[in-house]
Order: sequence, then C-alpha cells, then structure tokens
Amino acid sequence: MDSDNPTGAENQQERLTAIGWVVGFVDGEGCFSCPIYWCHKMTLGWQVRPEFAVVQGASSRDVLEELVQFFGCGKVFRNRRHDNHREDLFRYCVQRIGDLRGSIVPFFEQYQLRTAKVQNFRKFAEIVELMGDGRHLTVSGLMQISGIAETMNHRKPSEVLRILRDHTPALFPDPREEEEMVRTLRRRREVGGNDQPAV
Amino acid sequence: MDSDNPTGAENQQERLTAIGWVVGFVDGEGCFSCPIYWCHKMTLGWQVRPEFAVVQGASSRDVLEELVQFFGCGKVFRNRRHDNHREDLFRYCVQRIGDLRGSIVPFFEQYQLRTAKVQNFRKFAEIVELMGDGRHLTVSGLMQISGIAETMNHRKPSEVLRILRDHTPALFPDPREEEEMVRTLRRRREVGGNDQPAV
Repeated sequence: MDSDNPTGAENQQERLTAIGWVVGFVDGEGCFSCPIYWCHKMTLGWQVRPEFAVVQGASSRDVLEELVQFFGCGKVFRNRRHDNHREDLFRYCVQRIGDLRGSIVPFFEQYQLRTAKVQNFRKFAEIVELMGDGRHLTVSGLMQISGIAETMNHRKPSEVLRILRDHTPALFPDPREEEEMVRTLRRRREVGGNDQPAV
Repeated sequence: MDSDNPTGAENQQERLTAIGWVVGFVDGEGCFSCPIYWCHKMTLGWQVRPEFAVVQGASSRDVLEELVQFFGCGKVFRNRRHDNHREDLFRYCVQRIGDLRGSIVPFFEQYQLRTAKVQNFRKFAEIVELMGDGRHLTVSGLMQISGIAETMNHRKPSEVLRILRDHTPALFPDPREEEEMVRTLRRRREVGGNDQPAV
C-alpha cells in the first residue's frame, strides 16, 4: 500500500470492508442451489441449473443492485406478492455458467464464508466445475451432479435421484446399456461439435 | 499503516474484512428489538428491554461465539426445538444497557448497516440513549420510548401504546395528574438517590 497516497489507502480500506460485507451478507442471506428440471430440449432430458441468489424486501432492493455492481454480473428480479405481506420481494440472481465460473465461485473461494453455508457452497462449486467441463451432458456426469445436488440445502436424501428415476427410467439401464448410452452421447456431441454446456 | 511490517498490514486487512463481515452478517441476520414487559418491580410497572440478537442454526453456532469475542460482550443461548426442525437454534444476545451503549451502538454508528435495517437500528440507538439518561423511569420518557418502539420491526402502529393503556391506565391520567405523577417520580428518584436505569 502506498503510504503517500491516503486516498489510495482509503480506497483499499473501503474495498476490504466491502468484500467483508458481501461475505457476511451472503453468509446471512445468500443461497447456493442447484435445481434439476425436466426439459425435453436438453440432451438427456434434464436441465441442471445452478443458481446463486440473495433475496431482500423491497425496502432493501438497493443492496441487491450493489451486488450487481460488485460482482459485475447477475440481475435483480421482482417477486410480486399478492398475499398479506407488506412488501414485494426482490431477488438478486446469477445463473449463467460463465458468470458463476468467472465471478461468483472464484470470489467465494478466495473469501471464505464463515457459517455452515460454506459446505453448501463447496458442493455448488463442484457442480459448476463439472458443468464447465460439460459433464452434465453425460449420463454418469448427470448422475454425479444429481448425487451432489441432493445433499444441498437440507434436501431429503435421494430426492433428486428418485425424481430422475421416476421421470427418466431410461437413464437407469443395466451397466452395459449405460456404457453404450454414454458412448452414443459422446459420439453425438463429437459429431455435433458442441463442447459448450447446454444451459 | 507501517509498510515495513507486513504482519501489521495483514492484521489490519483482516480487521477490516472482519468488520465488514460483521456488518454484512448483521444486515442479513441481526435484529434490534425493544420489547416492553409488564414487571411490578419496575418504578412505573414496565420494563423496557432493548436487545440486539443474531440467530443461527446449531451448525453455525461458531460464528455466534465469534461475535462474543468480536464485541467483547453478550452471550450465546440455545433455543431447544422440539418440533420437526432438524437442529436447535442458537441466539447471540446483548441486553445489558452498558454493553449496548458501550459496544453495540457505537460500532454500528461507526460502521453503517446498508439494508433498510439501518432505520431500525437508529430507533434502537435512540431508545438506548434515552435509557442511558434514565428516561424510561419517567412517564413522559416511557411514553416516548414506547412511541419509538411501536414503529420498530414492522409492529402494528399503536400496539405498544395500546398495551400500555390496557394494562396501566394510571399512566394515562389527565395532563395535570401526569405532571404531578412526573414530579412525584422525580422526587422519589432524588430521595432514593437512584440515578441508574432500573434494568
């Protein structure tokens, strides 16, 4: 730090307290989740959609807009409420894999969460990494990701795998058939030349 | 900052991020409240009990213990849960007026909350200041404090004052009687030599 430049030092102090604030606020209000949706357009029929979100009431919407500035990604959405709650909710949300890989995950790897939420984040980061490698487009990768996702946010064990089994029994053939299915999918991706995650 | 002393600089950086973290975490999970209880031992029959609290599940109890260290005051209590929740709750709690005046309020006056919770904090700080001056031991002060408290944490307007009216109608005599009551209370305090808040 340049001691002849008090403005620079002040900026550095502000930056550090801002970083600390974001980590603390996310420790309190942030959520790392990974829902898996049925979607016929996806290669395997399932869309893996990891999401980092922070929700606040309308009166604190400003801090969510500050998160957009801070991370340089994500958007703020309004969740209208028609019940007897006093204000609408707003939701800061990052879903793009590129933003999660390039901004969100590296930030929380560098500046660690202090609550038990850190365990959830580590699983989330693992899924994002697997998706970055396109693993969600393979049967074994989808199984691996859903196995991780089912242990996040206090989901009941096997909930995701049970849903996958119920809705796409074809994903659970005997081992030889699965190997063949993986080979087929690999060939299809190689022919299509599509190395990007289908999200 | 001493540029020849990297350890000192690192400590300073850690301190700043720790401060930022506490502000962010309290912006998310903290609560400044001021319940007013009926208590026959109090001068006016009511006990004003401002409280700063942060609640976490058992798996994040450690961060509450860190708050005890950080602020140098307060305690962590376990709230046992016998319903179907997966873990007990723990509650970091500061109630002593000396701790609130000496540690909690000055900290959040120096390092400002960023969410709408800051408005609640300002009311809380005003009540703590009034109590520090013993104003809760006077009828007019108790009315003033309950008037502030009823606007905190989205309470329904007039709830506190309504309860006060219902339970202690003697606090709402005609104006001349109130003046006499205030004079009597002042004399009582002067004779008793008790200048400390009765909390």
